[in-house]
Amino acid sequence: MDTITSRKNAYIVHLRSLSGDAAYRQEKGEYLCDGHKLLTEAIAADAEISSVLWKDAPMRDLPCKRQFCAPAELFDYASPMKNSPGPLFTVRMPLRLHEDTLRNAIVLENVQDPGNVGTVLRTAAAFGIDAVLLCGDCADLYSPKTVRATMGAIFRQRACTLSREELTDLLRQSGLPLYGAALSEQARDVRKVDITHCAVAVGSEGRGLSEEILALCEEQIIIPMDAHSESLNAAVAASVLMWEMARERE
Amino acid sequence: MDTITSRKNAYIVHLRSLSGDAAYRQEKGEYLCDGHKLLTEAIAADAEISSVLWKDAPMRDLPCKRQFCAPAELFDYASPMKNSPGPLFTVRMPLRLHEDTLRNAIVLENVQDPGNVGTVLRTAAAFGIDAVLLCGDCADLYSPKTVRATMGAIFRQRACTLSREELTDLLRQSGLPLYGAALSEQARDVRKVDITHCAVAVGSEGRGLSEEILALCEEQIIIPMDAHSESLNAAVAASVLMWEMARERE
Repeated sequence: MDTITSRKNAYIVHLRSLSGDAAYRQEKGEYLCDGHKLLTEAIAADAEISSVLWKDAPMRDLPCKRQFCAPAELFDYASPMKNSPGPLFTVRMPLRLHEDTLRNAIVLENVQDPGNVGTVLRTAAAFGIDAVLLCGDCADLYSPKTVRATMGAIFRQRACTLSREELTDLLRQSGLPLYGAALSEQARDVRKVDITHCAVAVGSEGRGLSEEILALCEEQIIIPMDAHSESLNAAVAASVLMWEMARERE
Repeated sequence: MDTITSRKNAYIVHLRSLSGDAAYRQEKGEYLCDGHKLLTEAIAADAEISSVLWKDAPMRDLPCKRQFCAPAELFDYASPMKNSPGPLFTVRMPLRLHEDTLRNAIVLENVQDPGNVGTVLRTAAAFGIDAVLLCGDCADLYSPKTVRATMGAIFRQRACTLSREELTDLLRQSGLPLYGAALSEQARDVRKVDITHCAVAVGSEGRGLSEEILALCEEQIIIPMDAHSESLNAAVAASVLMWEMARERE
């Protein structure tokens, strides 16, 4: 196994670009992951691991052909995490799911915190939600922070970023109505609406869903809250809604 | 209004200690908050604002008597946030709630992420949960990161840190059984257990509840999940459970 020693090495430059540049990730169809926990999850989920960078020395046997070592200082330079024990590894993005038919979905619009987006993927996987669909200006699905917050659900959970038009087409071909979480007067109590077969959209914490998304919604729904509370954390709101989508199943 | 110009000023030193030192916060019975949004929430909730530090100049009228200004550089030195527009302000901690009787409560054990603890307070306030009780090695209730994640719920939501013995006493005097969220074989599906009048305990993501807390639990409950998912984010798990506690109310 080769040991890399220079910051100018093409693979080190590649890893740093995967870490910081969403457009580069899309272009390469690859994203960056960190740590043993995620590596174990990636293997269990049969994700396509395309390369591995070990800190100092390899710590386990892997079938992946492209494996390298780097001394600690160079490893830390390549890594988006501080003081990570490693390894860093890259994973192929799955093919897009536009051809699929969905049983249900959670839609996020303008949810900018990568921790929230990652947490939503994690909850979606736990509650058996078919897809997480990101619209508007959301945190990048494959940024290292998002990936870390998924705790491995990124390797199992169907998810993609898409335009409003693509969302409309995907829901139409799946025969799914869209419900929008909103704090408006006309929103119906989520406990009184059957949301087992639909897509539910959740907006940013500050501004809620855009007019454009609300216009696509069959109905607005609300998680009832105390009068003094303005909103829930976006990942919590999405998680409670996904729980309601899954709740009636045995 | 006085303008402070030195890093050695006693009030600046005080603010930095409130920011970084949990024991100092307890000793002074005071905690530090940042920003207009939290200030508006504190005023609305009638919290006891004990002092304010403005960045450069005051931006609104406040009844608080102890108000100071600091030039931007000194303000940034005092603030736990980078590039905050300010103000910083201090709030008196409420009296402890050990004398109270609770209708229900969420108990967190060893939840170390301040964002998760703050998010749980925010959800508890939204769902009308009577108290958030922190046990073991949780993030400090009054750290700036926790306070920020509450989005103002810190001023309205009853919450305290307490020992296992104090927890036992408080639940006994409130007549509340304790249920523990667990991934064990004997845990009952939360949808089949009435948790409207009880306390529910949630542990750390990695290790779950301690044996000591489980020994206090009347019953173990589980949020059913996909077989491939190991756990939920701690704030999400607590939020789904609080939603279930509140769900049956109209």
